[in-house]
Order: sequence, then structure tokens, then C-alpha cells
Amino acid sequence: MTQEVKGSLIIIGGAEDKYGESKILKHIVNVTGGKEARLVVLTTATEKPESVGSEYKKIFEKLGAKQTEILNVNTRDDANNEDNAEKIRNSTGIFFTGGDQLRITSILGGTKVYAAMQAAYNEGTVIAGTSAGASAMSNNMIVDGNSYDSARKCTLKMAPGLGLLQDAIIDQHFAQRGRIGRLLCGVAENPYMLGIGIDEDTAIQVHPDAHFEVIGTNAVTVIDGTSIISSNVSESKPDEILAINNVTVHILPEGYGFDMKSRKVMRLH
Amino acid sequence: MTQEVKGSLIIIGGAEDKYGESKILKHIVNVTGGKEARLVVLTTATEKPESVGSEYKKIFEKLGAKQTEILNVNTRDDANNEDNAEKIRNSTGIFFTGGDQLRITSILGGTKVYAAMQAAYNEGTVIAGTSAGASAMSNNMIVDGNSYDSARKCTLKMAPGLGLLQDAIIDQHFAQRGRIGRLLCGVAENPYMLGIGIDEDTAIQVHPDAHFEVIGTNAVTVIDGTSIISSNVSESKPDEILAINNVTVHILPEGYGFDMKSRKVMRLH
Repeated sequence: MTQEVKGSLIIIGGAEDKYGESKILKHIVNVTGGKEARLVVLTTATEKPESVGSEYKKIFEKLGAKQTEILNVNTRDDANNEDNAEKIRNSTGIFFTGGDQLRITSILGGTKVYAAMQAAYNEGTVIAGTSAGASAMSNNMIVDGNSYDSARKCTLKMAPGLGLLQDAIIDQHFAQRGRIGRLLCGVAENPYMLGIGIDEDTAIQVHPDAHFEVIGTNAVTVIDGTSIISSNVSESKPDEILAINNVTVHILPEGYGFDMKSRKVMRLH
Repeated sequence: MTQEVKGSLIIIGGAEDKYGESKILKHIVNVTGGKEARLVVLTTATEKPESVGSEYKKIFEKLGAKQTEILNVNTRDDANNEDNAEKIRNSTGIFFTGGDQLRITSILGGTKVYAAMQAAYNEGTVIAGTSAGASAMSNNMIVDGNSYDSARKCTLKMAPGLGLLQDAIIDQHFAQRGRIGRLLCGVAENPYMLGIGIDEDTAIQVHPDAHFEVIGTNAVTVIDGTSIISSNVSESKPDEILAINNVTVHILPEGYGFDMKSRKVMRLH
């Protein structure tokens, strides 16, 4: 991003409540215009676009969105289709489903739909994503890595993400799949990057001034590496367990937020 | 970067000529002020900072730089030292030696020296780097991956880089170590990212308007993935050979340049 962004991101750690209170999905409808919301559900991440898309369409309509359109962009040809780009431009909110984050970047990267989405985001459109759709938001995107394991260099695989969120690395299904090890590795590799681990049925809303608030039933783990005194991430062998001296961690449930510029916790209500 | 940048980058593919014509290193002295150049040699990447630093100091002085200071920032404590940050601020050019790119990011990331360097770059300071110092320039930094091999997903390891160069992935020792396979994999993962493979004794100078020119005795390989019709990078197994349909490649020797915004080759002289 080289200009001031007006849009917000809603980044969900996967497995959000769909048939109960549906707090996160309802929040998406509210911030994208409520009864005037025109949503696009982008199913690029999943190999079952029909069933996943129609489930979200029904839910968003039940939650009061005026219009929900499923956009099945499954090839780079679809992603260079002008009609699809126009649908992105006309929406008030875009929702990325779960699936495989490499499908999102390898199919959308450098296409008309991608350019339309970046322009819409700059102009104020809300972009939301769950699971794979959450991982893809950042510039450095986690693709793979051991769950339920200590931090080791070899297990973390990253690729270039959509770049909507700067200077951070997102991870999802965070506590539920024991993923703090791999996120710590990413932060140790470059402590300038803020690590943000989002639990299931939990989300952050990132505002244009780079603060975020937590929504949902579980927590968000923030890993701030600027305090690291030393780590062995550069000299360690690929399978070796990392040593990291003095990393700062925050655990934030709903009611809390975080200012990504000053790296300070915010108490919201 | 959220503001207009005034600085330039000089990104060298390693093994630059030091004792012959020294074209690339001489160019660095010329664009950082010639007889008025005040250079800082940053040895963070190497585990032999004394010998590597003093070699470059002698060369830059022989090539006419007014002042060359070796900055041995080998720990995060050094990188948070105010005197070191001040030396960065007072320089007209910063030179990153080779070594291990993960040392650069894990030691400098989120420190005072890092912030001083980003601010100096925004204000017009030239930042140069060779080999590991080249890889670290981009947002998505290649850390490891097979040389002399076809493109396979598993072999490519990336980490968050310094982020001075946006929307591109750098690779170095490019033709000499047969690295096109791994760079193709990175571009296929997100075709929005421009792949830039720089040969030994060859460099690019990236200007503030995002065009670059090639300098040196070998070539620069540019991989533009926006033309990709399809690839199997998301569904392929880690060790499987990739299929990529219709990627665009440019081979650029000295006398040529490239506009990273329009993605067009430039004939310079």
C-alpha cells in the first residue's frame, strides 16, 4: 500500500459460529451496511465452491444483508474476467471462505479481480476472511508448518500473501491446533513482524489507523518480537528447537484491542 | 512503506568484482556522493565481520569514498544502540555484506538501527547489498531452497525480509547456482510478486519511481507471473515438480532496465 487505506479487515480464526448467535458473521453484515450490505462471497480458497458459497449466502441473508452474491473465481481466467472485477467494485464487503491459502494467491495474484479488490479496500470496502482467507491477508503468509509442536525453523513454510495487512503474520485455528511454535519461528525470523494468532470463533477487526479489536468467544495471541534480546534462528539447523530470549506475548479476549503502531494493548470496554 | 520513498536500492547478485574494474562498487561510491560519500558497511549478515568489513572499507576508500565506517551490529543489543542508529542517519549510503540473510532480519528487525535505516532510505539514502544483503531487501525473502533443481514447492523457504523493495522476490547467485526453479515456485505461489534473479557480478539499481537498471557483467532474469494461465502450486504435493502454464521471462544485461509498475522492459543505452 502506498496510499492511505480507508477500508477495514475482519480476520477470523476459522470455525466461526454459523447457526447460534453468529456474532462474527453478524458483525460483518453490520459494518458493511446492515440492511444495505452488498456482500460478495469469494470461494477461491475451496475446492467445493458450490456448497461452501451457498451456505454463507444463506447465512448472510438470514442475518439481514440486502444482497449476497457468490463469486466462484476458480481459475486465473475467471480472475481476469471484467464482470467479476466489476462485482468486487460494486460490493460493500468481500468475504473469503476457508480452504487453501495458496489457491487464493496463486489464482488471484496479479489479476483484475485482485486489482479491483485492492482498489476497493483502499476506498473503504471491508474485506473479511476465515481460516485460509485469514492467512492470506498478510504480506508474509503462513502456508504450512507443524501444529502441536515446539518452534523449529524447518516446519514453517511461508509464501507471499495478498498484502492487505502490512508488517504482521497471521495464523489461525491458533490455540485449537497448538500453533504458537510455528508463529514464534516467523516472528524470530524478523521481529519487526507482529505475530497475530487467532483462535477459532474469534476475529480481529483491523481499522484504517492500524489498531484492531477482538470479537468472538476465544482469544487472540499477539507476539511482539521487538523485545527479543537474542534467538538462534539464523544459526540453528532446520530441525533444531529454537531458543528465543525475551519475546513479548499478549492474550486478548473480546473487550480488548491492540494498536499495531505503538504495539500497546487497548482496553476497549 | 506508506510514504513516497526518495532513496535508491543497489541490489547485487553476489561475487562482485572487487579488484579489477570494480564497476558495481565504484557505481555505489558515485551515486552516494563520490568524493563526498559517507558509507556505512553493515556486517550483520556475516559471522566474520572483522575481515569482511575491513576488506570493503579498503575497497571503498580506494574507489574514492570520503569516509567508510564499518558497523559491526552483531546482536540485537548493538542494533538498539543509539550511536549505531546515529551513524546510519549520518551516512549517504549503507552497504550490506553477504552472509546469512536470516542474521540480518533476526538481528535488525524491529530495532533502532532498522528504524533509522528505513527513515534514511525514505529521505534519500542509498541502500546497497550483496548476496544475503540482496535477498533481505524484499518483503518476502528467500532463505533457502534447492539450487540446480526443477521448481518444487517443498524446496523453497521464505521469511519476512526488510521490506525495502515491495511486490518482488529477489534471488542471487542466480545463473551460477541454477536457481530459476525455486524463484519460479515463489512467483507461482503469488503471481503478483515479480521474481528478480540477479547473477554474480551483476546488480540492479532500483529508483524511487520503481524502475530499475542493470549494471555488471552478467544478467538479470525477471519472472512476471501475471501472464500465468494456470499452475498446480496449490494442489501439488511438497516434493512434486510444478507445472506452470505461460509465465513471462525477461533476460536483461547491462544497457537494459525494467519498469516494475508497467512490467515493461526498458532499453536504456
